[in-house]
This record gives sequence, C-alpha cells and structure tokens, in this order.
Amino acid sequence: MRAALDLFTSQGYDATSVNEIADRAGTTKTTFFRHFADKREVLFAGQDTHARLLAEAIAAAPDSATPLELVGLALDALTAVFTPERHEFAGQLRVVVADNSELRERSTYKRAGLAAAMTDALHARDVPEPNASLAAELGVLAFYRAFDRWSDPANEQSCTSLTRQALDELRTAAATLA
Amino acid sequence: MRAALDLFTSQGYDATSVNEIADRAGTTKTTFFRHFADKREVLFAGQDTHARLLAEAIAAAPDSATPLELVGLALDALTAVFTPERHEFAGQLRVVVADNSELRERSTYKRAGLAAAMTDALHARDVPEPNASLAAELGVLAFYRAFDRWSDPANEQSCTSLTRQALDELRTAAATLA
Repeated sequence: MRAALDLFTSQGYDATSVNEIADRAGTTKTTFFRHFADKREVLFAGQDTHARLLAEAIAAAPDSATPLELVGLALDALTAVFTPERHEFAGQLRVVVADNSELRERSTYKRAGLAAAMTDALHARDVPEPNASLAAELGVLAFYRAFDRWSDPANEQSCTSLTRQALDELRTAAATLA
Repeated sequence: MRAALDLFTSQGYDATSVNEIADRAGTTKTTFFRHFADKREVLFAGQDTHARLLAEAIAAAPDSATPLELVGLALDALTAVFTPERHEFAGQLRVVVADNSELRERSTYKRAGLAAAMTDALHARDVPEPNASLAAELGVLAFYRAFDRWSDPANEQSCTSLTRQALDELRTAAATLA
C-alpha cells in the first residue's frame, strides 16, 4: 500500500501498473491480485478493518449509551488507528484520491460501507429506524470532515479529538436544523 | 437505458456486453461510448440531470426558506421526475443494482454527487458549514429511503409524498438524537 501510494504520488495513478506496484513491494502481480480485487483496492483494503472496529465498539459499549454516544465510541475506536506516524501517508492519500475519479468512486463506496457497518451495529443494539441510519450518517460525516482536517500537513491535533469536535458540531447543527 | 436494464434483468449485468445493449437500442458500440463512459454509466447517466434539478430548486427558492426547507423544495423538484410510468423501471433498477457490486459502487458515487450538488447550492445561499453538509445528507438519506419504498411493486404513494414523509421522519429523529 505504501509502495502503491508512493508510485501514484510520483507518477500518477493512471500511469502506474499493477506490475510496477508489485515490483516496488517486492512481490508479484499474481500475489497482488490474491490480496486486492483491482488496482484501486490497494488504497482502501484497510476499510474492512475500519468497519469491523466501528461495529465492535458499538457492540461492546455500555447499555446506557445513547445512539450518538455509541457512534462517538465507535469513532474513538476507529480514529485510534490514525496515529501520528500515519499523518503524512494520510495527506498523500487525500491528494491522490481527490485527483482521480476512479479513486473518488471507490472512496465513496467504502464510506457507504462504514455507514452500513455502524447502522447494522446500531440495529443490533435495538436503535430503531430512521435513528440508526441517521446517527451512522452523522458519524461518517464527522469522521470524513475530521480526516480532512487531520491530514492537512499543518494540523497538529489528534484524529480522535478532531472527530469528537466534528461530531459535536454536527450534533449542534442537527438541533438547529430540526 | 431501457434496453440495457431489460438485458441486465433477463441475463445479468456481467453477462451483457455493450454490443448487445447497443444492438437492442438500435445503435452502435461507438455511439454508446460517445454517451456513456462505461457499461455501468448507462443506468446512472440521468443523475447529472438530478443534481441539476436539486441545485436549481435551491437557487430559486424564496429568501425566507430555512436550510431544511430548501432541501425539501429541492427534493420536490427531483421527485417530480419519478412519475408513475417510471415505477416499474425503478423496481427493476433497484433489483439489478442491489445484485452487483460494480453497480452498487457507481450508485453510491452518484449519491455522493447529489449530496455535493445540494451542499454547493446551500453554500451559494449562505448556509454555513456544517449545516449545509448536514442538511444535504439528510435530504439524500430521505430521498434514498423514500425511493426504496416507492420502487416497491406494492407501493401506491407518489415519490414526492414518500420523500416528504421520510424527510419529516429524519427531522424528528435529528431532534431526538441531538
């Protein structure tokens, strides 16, 4: 993934072949396709882990938690993954994805997967519709807004703290809108 | 598009070639690719019109409209397109998309495009962040929930009325969550 992102950054996504990525990563095209369905997937495969982190945190939360508190705990678990060491990588990823429609498309699909994982986990905690879908969308919106701020080279706050702030802002906005 | 959907329904999306679609529609592969970037796009090309309808309705709304009222008017304009004659088609589309990951992916990308169109139009009406993004997401969520109900073969309500109901439910849910 690191190898792929470096190549995409230096020579562009379209100009980079799977053979080059495999070469740079010290592996083969066959092995690449054993791990990734297509070239785009190399940047997003981690999202399955992210969906699992969200779902597990919601399942493990105390009985007293409200839907938005469940979402907050899920986002804490997810954003713990985005350590300072991944900061530069995230900035690079943001630029590469923003620049290519295929990657933007895969990114929105993964985003929908995160929302679905939270919605399902909220249903399992007996949160009814449409509250579950709405809380999940708020959470995903908060995370992506915070991730954008976090991956800015000038940012020094943690991804968890930025995501908590974004969720609070959205909660306030939801009260205003309603 | 009708031709493509009929073929996808009868023989599956993967098993249908662009040549077959062009044949059925009385045209050629070259003409097909002049209109559509890829095979998937034949089912979603209308979404650019949908994004425009949303944006225009928000731009044309009275000054007194609140952000959620702007979104409601945008959805009225969008859902006016989904007339009873398109009901069977929508049901078919829902089944074909649900069944194929490539189509689900393109569908989420188009959904993100509708949210972005509303967000931009709300910014142009001086709705600040994060209210604009949130109102747009609520609107898109309402529309897709309503579209699912509308395209159910047993449904007899209009798409506009179902979308208004869904938006009301989400507004209530937003007040509860916040």
